[in-house]
Amino acid sequence: MPTSDGNDDVRMRGFARRVRVSDALQWVDRHARPVSATEQVELAEASGRILAENVVSPLDVPPFDRSAMDGYALRGDETTGASSYNPLVFRLLGQSLPGRPFLGRVEPGTAVRIMTGAPLPDGADAVVPAEYAREVGSSVEITLAVPPQRHVGHRGEDVLAGATVLQAGRRLRPQDVGLLAAVGRDRVCARRRPRVRIVITGNELATPGAERSPFQIYDSNSAMLRALVHRDGGVIESLVHVSDDRHAIENAMTRSGADIVLVSGGSSVGAEDHAPVVLRERGELAIHGLAMRPSSPTGMGRIENWLVFLLPGNPVSCLCAYDFFAGRAIRRAAGRPATWPYPACRAVLTRKIASAIGRVDYCRVRLVETEPSAAHETELGESILVADAGAGEPGAPRGRVEPLAVSGASVLSSTTRADGFVVVPESREGFAPADQVTVFLYDLS
Amino acid sequence: MPTSDGNDDVRMRGFARRVRVSDALQWVDRHARPVSATEQVELAEASGRILAENVVSPLDVPPFDRSAMDGYALRGDETTGASSYNPLVFRLLGQSLPGRPFLGRVEPGTAVRIMTGAPLPDGADAVVPAEYAREVGSSVEITLAVPPQRHVGHRGEDVLAGATVLQAGRRLRPQDVGLLAAVGRDRVCARRRPRVRIVITGNELATPGAERSPFQIYDSNSAMLRALVHRDGGVIESLVHVSDDRHAIENAMTRSGADIVLVSGGSSVGAEDHAPVVLRERGELAIHGLAMRPSSPTGMGRIENWLVFLLPGNPVSCLCAYDFFAGRAIRRAAGRPATWPYPACRAVLTRKIASAIGRVDYCRVRLVETEPSAAHETELGESILVADAGAGEPGAPRGRVEPLAVSGASVLSSTTRADGFVVVPESREGFAPADQVTVFLYDLS
Repeated sequence: MPTSDGNDDVRMRGFARRVRVSDALQWVDRHARPVSATEQVELAEASGRILAENVVSPLDVPPFDRSAMDGYALRGDETTGASSYNPLVFRLLGQSLPGRPFLGRVEPGTAVRIMTGAPLPDGADAVVPAEYAREVGSSVEITLAVPPQRHVGHRGEDVLAGATVLQAGRRLRPQDVGLLAAVGRDRVCARRRPRVRIVITGNELATPGAERSPFQIYDSNSAMLRALVHRDGGVIESLVHVSDDRHAIENAMTRSGADIVLVSGGSSVGAEDHAPVVLRERGELAIHGLAMRPSSPTGMGRIENWLVFLLPGNPVSCLCAYDFFAGRAIRRAAGRPATWPYPACRAVLTRKIASAIGRVDYCRVRLVETEPSAAHETELGESILVADAGAGEPGAPRGRVEPLAVSGASVLSSTTRADGFVVVPESREGFAPADQVTVFLYDLS
Repeated sequence: MPTSDGNDDVRMRGFARRVRVSDALQWVDRHARPVSATEQVELAEASGRILAENVVSPLDVPPFDRSAMDGYALRGDETTGASSYNPLVFRLLGQSLPGRPFLGRVEPGTAVRIMTGAPLPDGADAVVPAEYAREVGSSVEITLAVPPQRHVGHRGEDVLAGATVLQAGRRLRPQDVGLLAAVGRDRVCARRRPRVRIVITGNELATPGAERSPFQIYDSNSAMLRALVHRDGGVIESLVHVSDDRHAIENAMTRSGADIVLVSGGSSVGAEDHAPVVLRERGELAIHGLAMRPSSPTGMGRIENWLVFLLPGNPVSCLCAYDFFAGRAIRRAAGRPATWPYPACRAVLTRKIASAIGRVDYCRVRLVETEPSAAHETELGESILVADAGAGEPGAPRGRVEPLAVSGASVLSSTTRADGFVVVPESREGFAPADQVTVFLYDLS
């Protein structure tokens, strides 16, 4: 039996008191800040990244007046009275194509054939669409009156030179990347993504695909955490496996290079649980032991300027502790919304969920009856195109859900059989059958 | 003026009739099928991919009985009556650690110190948590009665050997990848992602970052489409720029290697719009010209076994046509839900949106007042932990939205200033002020 090495050492004695989940969330929100370091990013890789500069356009977009239609450029005032019963004839001077403008001038009584996007010739101020025109020899008959400026896209109508088109802090959408290209940018300054180190502890772990001795299990948390970090906008700085050895764990946790360190396994109060001791001695073990199920043996703190999350080795606990705390920190560091990426819906319970006041429970659930939801109503297709105004009640319950498991921290398949989870808040003893609850769905879209 | 080369040639004559958006969506749904080809994928890259095999576990998970707690393994029946007032003493034989089991046998009156995840020694059938035990010399005092099986994780409790853990067709979640690792897999057979070729046409286009002549504009659709394809689960087979030249466009469209070809620009009825002609002559131009604004000069069809989408060159039209049709095809080909990835909410209009019966309008809107929404209510933190049951009315309108633009197909900044868009269905003349509408939000999470 290891002897206690201080009053705070909880090894083999259990947690004296468990921290409220809401307090742990507040700790995350206080300490997880967007990464401030920046880097140049190629435009092809920029979507989803957080812009770290105010982008000012050096040019007008478009940089010239141009046609918004395929048709004929002319002087709009000269088309007054044109109709299919009264076609007006203009002499055709030539054509203006995108990138190949007509270099002459449209004088009274003349027109130039023009394609969408082509520069408007000097002298012209309007475009008659092609369907209201008919070429006859070297002339064109116009059957539609267009006022000046009709079907003309003006220089700078999209962006004026000197305008700030996007501001620092923006998470770039696909169309933002298009706009950056439109103002001539092929790269931008973006915030560096948070670098996340994954430290996997456990002498019992075998590598998937390799041989396994009889008392080993395959390491599932590496693959799961890697996917979760990627989902939340982090990049893997490194993924290291260390034995249940104080010095190996200490080296992996205290080496610089990561913004956030996740330690999987050895987070509790066992004799081999070195990570909490390392965190307390080499930095700050701010929180250790939570009033939640599963994931109570979760810890978090700091070493120098990086955050460290101690995640239980049991895979459901690891997933839950990641999603509540570490993922939130990574999303915040990545400049993303702190909230869960999981879509939420309301549903009615088929059975009760038992919990205890003062404890948060993470209960995996399965949808057993699904009713058309907001998402379905607004699905592209007949429904939205015909019935949008009546799309109705997106807040109504989606259907019924069956609780699968609250305990079973080691049964990862409970999270693959489940469609999502329900969180029982600490204020409640649980939920009764037929209670309406918020379900977070594991499938993102 | 080019002469018509057939009754179907719409060049410079306008679309004789415009196809309903719902018909075009049905065409997409009829022809865009999940890619059936498969490939081996490393587990580290497997999250989000579509599984193409039924995965059967070759082993029990866990492969042995193990402790679910840090504590002491013993015979549960022998703890009857143990309490803090009546500690029972067991002789300590040794310890069982993860990966380093105790190899002896727990006989009556003995116990073995055990850590979470360590193999349960022969003879033991229960675990007393460490906080209810105190080591005294070579013995341990137990102050809690535990029945047999308490705190024991049984062999196969997560997965039984021979069980199908995940089925073909499943889109892999992070925890699925973890489960695959748990059953020993380091790679899986997944559907190949759809290969998308982007063909950018337009003599007026300059490459962002490079010099631009006075009548050129920078190409914005390349960067935007690349990001959109990536978002929807496609991979870029190639991105090619071709001049407004029939043979160059034909080569780019008819070369094999892609599942889906997107052609940007030259999709309308101008003299330089070669892509629709190529598609009709070399394959099938199934749909050309849509009853929508913007994006009416959109086309779609097939060449051999790939789908071809003709997207307008104007960037807003390109974005809208992509999102309605091409993106849907890519998502379907990728095995994802066909619906938009955009979160939807309900909101009240500040001003009317004018449309016309028979036409779908894509109206960019800006949120001007936002009220706490379902997403906010369910945000992690006090609200969900305290007030989940009363989280309330996620279907109620989020706030008010201001229509920004329906026209302005070339003004890409309208989609960067907007928070999202409203679709006016073809059944309506528009929306009145104070109408409640569904808003699709551009920011995904």
